[in-house]
Amino acid sequence: MEWKPDKAGETPLYLQIKDYIKNKIETGQWTVGMKIPSQRKLAERFEVNRSTVVTAFDELIAEGLLERKSGKGTRVKNNTWSLFSEQPPPDWSSYVKKSIHIPNLPTVQDIHKAEPLPHIIRLGTGEPSPELFPREMMARVLKRLPSRIRSLGYEEEKGLYPLREQLSAYMKTLGISVSPSSILIVSGALQALQLISVGLLRRGSTVLLEKPSYLSSLNVFPSSGIRLFGLPMDATGLQLLALRKHRKRQNASLLYTNPTFHNPTGTVMPVEKRKLLLKICEEEQLPVVEDDVYRELWLDSPPPKPLKAMDNNGSVLYIGSFSKALSPGLRIGWIAGSETVIDRLADIKMQTDYGSSSLSQWAAAEWLSSGLYAEHLGQMRSSLRDRRDLAEELLRTEFEGIAEWVKPAGGFYVWLRLPQGLSLRELFEDALKAGILLNPGHLYDGDDDCHLRLSYAYASVSDMRKGMAKLAGLIRGLASRR
Amino acid sequence: MEWKPDKAGETPLYLQIKDYIKNKIETGQWTVGMKIPSQRKLAERFEVNRSTVVTAFDELIAEGLLERKSGKGTRVKNNTWSLFSEQPPPDWSSYVKKSIHIPNLPTVQDIHKAEPLPHIIRLGTGEPSPELFPREMMARVLKRLPSRIRSLGYEEEKGLYPLREQLSAYMKTLGISVSPSSILIVSGALQALQLISVGLLRRGSTVLLEKPSYLSSLNVFPSSGIRLFGLPMDATGLQLLALRKHRKRQNASLLYTNPTFHNPTGTVMPVEKRKLLLKICEEEQLPVVEDDVYRELWLDSPPPKPLKAMDNNGSVLYIGSFSKALSPGLRIGWIAGSETVIDRLADIKMQTDYGSSSLSQWAAAEWLSSGLYAEHLGQMRSSLRDRRDLAEELLRTEFEGIAEWVKPAGGFYVWLRLPQGLSLRELFEDALKAGILLNPGHLYDGDDDCHLRLSYAYASVSDMRKGMAKLAGLIRGLASRR
Repeated sequence: MEWKPDKAGETPLYLQIKDYIKNKIETGQWTVGMKIPSQRKLAERFEVNRSTVVTAFDELIAEGLLERKSGKGTRVKNNTWSLFSEQPPPDWSSYVKKSIHIPNLPTVQDIHKAEPLPHIIRLGTGEPSPELFPREMMARVLKRLPSRIRSLGYEEEKGLYPLREQLSAYMKTLGISVSPSSILIVSGALQALQLISVGLLRRGSTVLLEKPSYLSSLNVFPSSGIRLFGLPMDATGLQLLALRKHRKRQNASLLYTNPTFHNPTGTVMPVEKRKLLLKICEEEQLPVVEDDVYRELWLDSPPPKPLKAMDNNGSVLYIGSFSKALSPGLRIGWIAGSETVIDRLADIKMQTDYGSSSLSQWAAAEWLSSGLYAEHLGQMRSSLRDRRDLAEELLRTEFEGIAEWVKPAGGFYVWLRLPQGLSLRELFEDALKAGILLNPGHLYDGDDDCHLRLSYAYASVSDMRKGMAKLAGLIRGLASRR
Repeated sequence: MEWKPDKAGETPLYLQIKDYIKNKIETGQWTVGMKIPSQRKLAERFEVNRSTVVTAFDELIAEGLLERKSGKGTRVKNNTWSLFSEQPPPDWSSYVKKSIHIPNLPTVQDIHKAEPLPHIIRLGTGEPSPELFPREMMARVLKRLPSRIRSLGYEEEKGLYPLREQLSAYMKTLGISVSPSSILIVSGALQALQLISVGLLRRGSTVLLEKPSYLSSLNVFPSSGIRLFGLPMDATGLQLLALRKHRKRQNASLLYTNPTFHNPTGTVMPVEKRKLLLKICEEEQLPVVEDDVYRELWLDSPPPKPLKAMDNNGSVLYIGSFSKALSPGLRIGWIAGSETVIDRLADIKMQTDYGSSSLSQWAAAEWLSSGLYAEHLGQMRSSLRDRRDLAEELLRTEFEGIAEWVKPAGGFYVWLRLPQGLSLRELFEDALKAGILLNPGHLYDGDDDCHLRLSYAYASVSDMRKGMAKLAGLIRGLASRR
């Protein structure tokens, strides 16, 4: 997808590459002092021999545009403009380094970079496979939109009213009674968390959550100066004794929980424990953020009702999303809760991005009102069940003796436990070299060194077979070298 | 659009309203301690007599659910649950009050609340009128999408590649040479600013900008602990002497500027001054954020090239958007600049909302590649020119002697100067009562007390005629009472 030299062209490849780099520098896209990609990486990206890139680099070094320092890679030394001038460009790198937001974890950055590579098998990706995308239904939804949409302007603060109305009716089917004015449309669950971090919490406050937790792989709370504190889990979700203890000890402001098909462990909290959890939170006056984005992806039987359905005093903020069950590309999720909170978060949302895509909001409303969403969910569950069963079969045949797991009852993930003492860092890198992208457990719990989050949702069925066999081989290899 | 009692129903209206309020309280949407809307407001919203609401309130007070304190409105006293229990609900209001993000300015909140009201004439709104929305072309774009979209997943970190490729080609027509890897797709220009605030700046740093400036109406920078410092303007944009002085005196980290059809004044910076500005910023090593979202809306002749087109060392970050020239509802804009910066902002964008709507990105790419965007721009300019000329005519006929203005050459706005000493707060409120929504100057410059930002883009042509005549009457009335 990126620029590549034209192999059929008359200009020699190294000259094309030289011109490409020169243009990057001249137009200020690569600034003075910036470390540029290695010769090896560029050779891969351009699909040429490394020697071709070396020739281009050598000429640019001779012209004074690049400089190579041993062990430190190649950097931009001058731009053509700076060869004639005294003024160096702004030092963007120092701007980046000293600014407020914490960068993604290095492994997460590596994952984002590797995801678009061709032929990579993504065994950890928390996203429905392109194979599962309901193309034909989406075409029907899009076809109906022009007759619905008079114009695509900014919407009301809380989002498109017809969508909030649909969501209010939909949540009633989950046992949750909220009116459209208690719902805020957001661009996915992650944005809901972002808004909560700056709209409800103070710097220095503490959020309790499961350990491991999807939320620990993100810097959305820490970037706002908010601390995360993980509570131990058992087979039924977070441990309630720990909750009570740490609410006080950590002076916690909020509990973030994902009680249904927990990411990454797949755990489902039983209904009696949900009631107890809620009772504790009410007694402790501890507000709860319930992340419920996997709810519809049950594979054996419907899960217990959400915490929010049992919440009688407005303690629970509920987060839902279309990203997992339908399509992440709509970027539509929602928060439901007390109007005081929803009004506040809506105000910040307006200050952040003026609302989510109206086009996506109309499409989501149409998915719901047409009944196509419900129809799709049936198909989705059926396909996902086949994938889960395949993963289970592959695990039983390929991973015997090298891993433990619990068969998930819904969601996307198997939380695979590997033998202690294996280097997951090494496994991640070996797998990447072998064309397999993994999500290691330390993303979800900094102390974890023996889990992988496997996803049966993303890779194609044939890639899953291939990838899992390869992965088992890599693990056995690593284990034997211990 | 909100719930209303069923006037044809058998249940008396006051009982329907009582049940509605009870449900709000029981489900925790209205929490204990929350101030609920006034009887007058609810009567308006439900389209019933105030006495009907009074009856409902009285019964709820008798049941112990509401309480009225003189001068302090009506509050929720108990929920049915709390009548039997000792635990009060979480104190959401104190969470809201003590949290990080600064709320919108009160006037901005008032504006957001008033915008969806029926029959309101919006004379300040910075958004193309629904009349200007290219419905038929959008239907053509939507029709083509299903054949383009294989699946709607998360996109690459920097956004959908085909869109970045189209934008790279489009920017070439503006004299800007950037490759797709130096472009980040964002959900509108506001999000670009949000990402810049946390991705490039430190707490305590200072951003220079025009005074007045659109950016001053937002708390996106102050919420991250970043100070805004306004530079005086003249008829050709910000004053360069002041720029040089305050770069040093304020130890500024960044210049935010909107040199083309400036919001709110409509000013266009001439080409020679652009060169000088860039020279100063290069000498001072002061990076520039160029907000260029009004560029395509020229009405008499094309404006000078962007600063970014003259930027040879990567000092300028360029912000573009489809919101003004096409449709805000797509929520698609972009940032172009040095890869160091784009990589950084892309990483934060992934942590904020995992990317913009793929559906909107595909639609935007199709607008560009099909040529429909260029075709639309021609029509848009022509309609906007008619509106600008109408506004000019109305101003000349209605506002003689009570206002001064410069005829804008593009964009959406007339920066209307009213006589000193008029209370703009009073005018805003009087106008709102008369069904007219205004954007007073203090939104863009806290010290301003004599300007309105009039927009000829939003109201329908007949509303513009009606609204402007009414507004002139209100101003004359206020002036005569001074």
